[in-house]
Amino acid sequence: MTPTAAGAGSAPTRTRPSRRRMLAGMAGATMAAPAAADTLAEVPPRGPGAPLSATSERSGYVHLGRIPESTPGRRPVDPGEAINSKTPLGQLVGTITPADLHYERSHAGVPDIDPALHRLLVHGMATRERVFTMDDIRAMPTTSRIAFLECTGNGWENWKTAPPDVTVQNTHGLVSTSEWTGVPLAYVLDLVGADPAATWMLAEGGDGAAVARSIPLTDEIIAEGMLAHGQNGEPLRPAHGFPLRLFLPGLEGNLNIKWLRRLKFGDRPFMTRWETARYTQLQADGSARQFQLRQEVNSVITAPSGMMQIRPGFNRVTGLAWSGHGRITRVEVSTDGARTWRDAAIAGPALPKAQARFQADWVWDGTPARLVSRATDEKGNLQPDRARFIAQTGTNALFHYNAQQTWAVDAEGRVRNVLA
Amino acid sequence: MTPTAAGAGSAPTRTRPSRRRMLAGMAGATMAAPAAADTLAEVPPRGPGAPLSATSERSGYVHLGRIPESTPGRRPVDPGEAINSKTPLGQLVGTITPADLHYERSHAGVPDIDPALHRLLVHGMATRERVFTMDDIRAMPTTSRIAFLECTGNGWENWKTAPPDVTVQNTHGLVSTSEWTGVPLAYVLDLVGADPAATWMLAEGGDGAAVARSIPLTDEIIAEGMLAHGQNGEPLRPAHGFPLRLFLPGLEGNLNIKWLRRLKFGDRPFMTRWETARYTQLQADGSARQFQLRQEVNSVITAPSGMMQIRPGFNRVTGLAWSGHGRITRVEVSTDGARTWRDAAIAGPALPKAQARFQADWVWDGTPARLVSRATDEKGNLQPDRARFIAQTGTNALFHYNAQQTWAVDAEGRVRNVLA
Repeated sequence: MTPTAAGAGSAPTRTRPSRRRMLAGMAGATMAAPAAADTLAEVPPRGPGAPLSATSERSGYVHLGRIPESTPGRRPVDPGEAINSKTPLGQLVGTITPADLHYERSHAGVPDIDPALHRLLVHGMATRERVFTMDDIRAMPTTSRIAFLECTGNGWENWKTAPPDVTVQNTHGLVSTSEWTGVPLAYVLDLVGADPAATWMLAEGGDGAAVARSIPLTDEIIAEGMLAHGQNGEPLRPAHGFPLRLFLPGLEGNLNIKWLRRLKFGDRPFMTRWETARYTQLQADGSARQFQLRQEVNSVITAPSGMMQIRPGFNRVTGLAWSGHGRITRVEVSTDGARTWRDAAIAGPALPKAQARFQADWVWDGTPARLVSRATDEKGNLQPDRARFIAQTGTNALFHYNAQQTWAVDAEGRVRNVLA
Repeated sequence: MTPTAAGAGSAPTRTRPSRRRMLAGMAGATMAAPAAADTLAEVPPRGPGAPLSATSERSGYVHLGRIPESTPGRRPVDPGEAINSKTPLGQLVGTITPADLHYERSHAGVPDIDPALHRLLVHGMATRERVFTMDDIRAMPTTSRIAFLECTGNGWENWKTAPPDVTVQNTHGLVSTSEWTGVPLAYVLDLVGADPAATWMLAEGGDGAAVARSIPLTDEIIAEGMLAHGQNGEPLRPAHGFPLRLFLPGLEGNLNIKWLRRLKFGDRPFMTRWETARYTQLQADGSARQFQLRQEVNSVITAPSGMMQIRPGFNRVTGLAWSGHGRITRVEVSTDGARTWRDAAIAGPALPKAQARFQADWVWDGTPARLVSRATDEKGNLQPDRARFIAQTGTNALFHYNAQQTWAVDAEGRVRNVLA
């Protein structure tokens, strides 16, 4: 009736740890815990609960929030100076990010736009240039897709040099996953009669910074892009682009223009300041690379992770992996600083261009350890270690950091960030 | 480069409406709207936005909330009397329900349990009876799955007689979809050494009503059940069972015991009052049926729906379909009161035992119309019309109503609930 736990010879790829190892770990954890588990004496008595409400709020015992951050060297920040607010990856489970905890990265704060007054201008190389209202857009067909969104600057601190006492929210909190709902980009191209010779599309936001980027109209981007107005079942929230944003699965965050108000078709990139000055990659030789748009394969262990405290015995290792190139097909973990690896289990479906949750069991012997993960995607891309990443990209650039993250565990069980 | 819109001969099953029909609809909508779309004069100027924050709140222009309801005949309710709170399906998009809008149905209010004091007793026909803490449970392997949860009483009002001026939130708001994360039930059976002869499992909640149900340990339920502690990426909220609930994909809501504190294995059902008195189905002949547990194939058009107002011309028809038996494979819509049907498009993936979003285009000619949907699942179950449903089940019972929903549109474009 129940699956049988395998013996000592079980392969490291099996989904569940062996019963023996698990029970050993559980017993160790129970012994170390101050409150013994094997008593029901402390369980509070039953009683009438709070009335039902219009919205189900979080438990008073759960404290979730992001960390608004300013530019480096200026934290804690004046809220008006914050340029991003990071998802608390270390406290989340599964793969979906609650909409209120999806990371924010903005260049001129968060406008709350009246949808009745919002307009989308679609023009350029198209036979039927149009201005759409939100009512027009909501009357169009939609598609929904679970996919990650990641700031291209996610993790850059560890590329350079980062302090040891940071959390996974600090190091990797600029990536989140949602169900996005919107109008297929292909539908809009069709509707306005975009010229087949239009190979680029300018997308412009309605924020104070007027962020605008050029999108190459490849088959993949046309097939997957959408004009999103929904996130996790509800209308977009202002911080995420309400009432309308571009969503391009797998492409760097800043291309997914929030508060979208203009699309223009052309046959070459539009060379906005965001792609000439801001989001270029300074190479090791001093030249600058433009239009490096797709997020690379990446992963991070979210627990145990920075600033956590663990105990000897059984510990569950869990984390997230993602790639702008497609599905995650494999995640490996190391507990000895990348000397040896074993396969982690993927806990649930690994959707293309969405975050996948991985897990592995680990019995910690109380000696210093180094936890590392590395992911592989369906295109065969393997996440590099930090030395290889730097050898390939140098240290001048700021974006698309996807090197393996190492968490060091000291003999007291404290977990810290290290640049391995 | 862009997909080509087909001509008048296009099959009704294609994903996107024909360009011609769409443009006709858009033009009509634009002409009827008080504000002309083809001007940018009213678009507010850009400006600095609000500071970034720790949580992204909803727009001030978006108003989402559930409707707490008392027992019939007593509404609006004293909050202390509310027995459920319904999801605003008519305002949502995609398939995921935000956790704060997931429906609530409780028998003794909402306890906010201290997870440090919570215990799960697992006993009965098992070789290693155990009491687990939440730390123990969080150390176990997890799986994540997107699936719907539905109160077995969802929609019962229309089985009997319901007023015309209700919304889809009133008629169908006791179903929601989430990503659930928890420990596989099979893992727990293995861990405690559940006796293969144990064919039933008692699950008991920690609420004041001590809801307790007997679950048959079929292969399907063992393979799919989980002890859930996460919902949509975060810890469960108190209204949804924090810190731990049973989650059984496809089975009626009350079996998914919230605030789970006990599992007991046995070789026969435990015959709690919830299955002798409460959740039995009174048949047409006066006998009572027990243990009708799986939710049947169902669907509803969420827009246009009750209390909405539409205009002649193009209208997008959209809704949700779901089945406790597996994937939704087909949804058909009718605009003439179930006389003729055409296939709707499924907008995104149709996951097994999850809600699927469907849509169809419709040009309303301004004469009275009747909108109906019917779903088919992968097991070949077809959602019945109301007459056939009542012919099969009579009118004594209260649960598992899944008859087709009809929305009547009058000549003024008002949409009302009718018992077709």
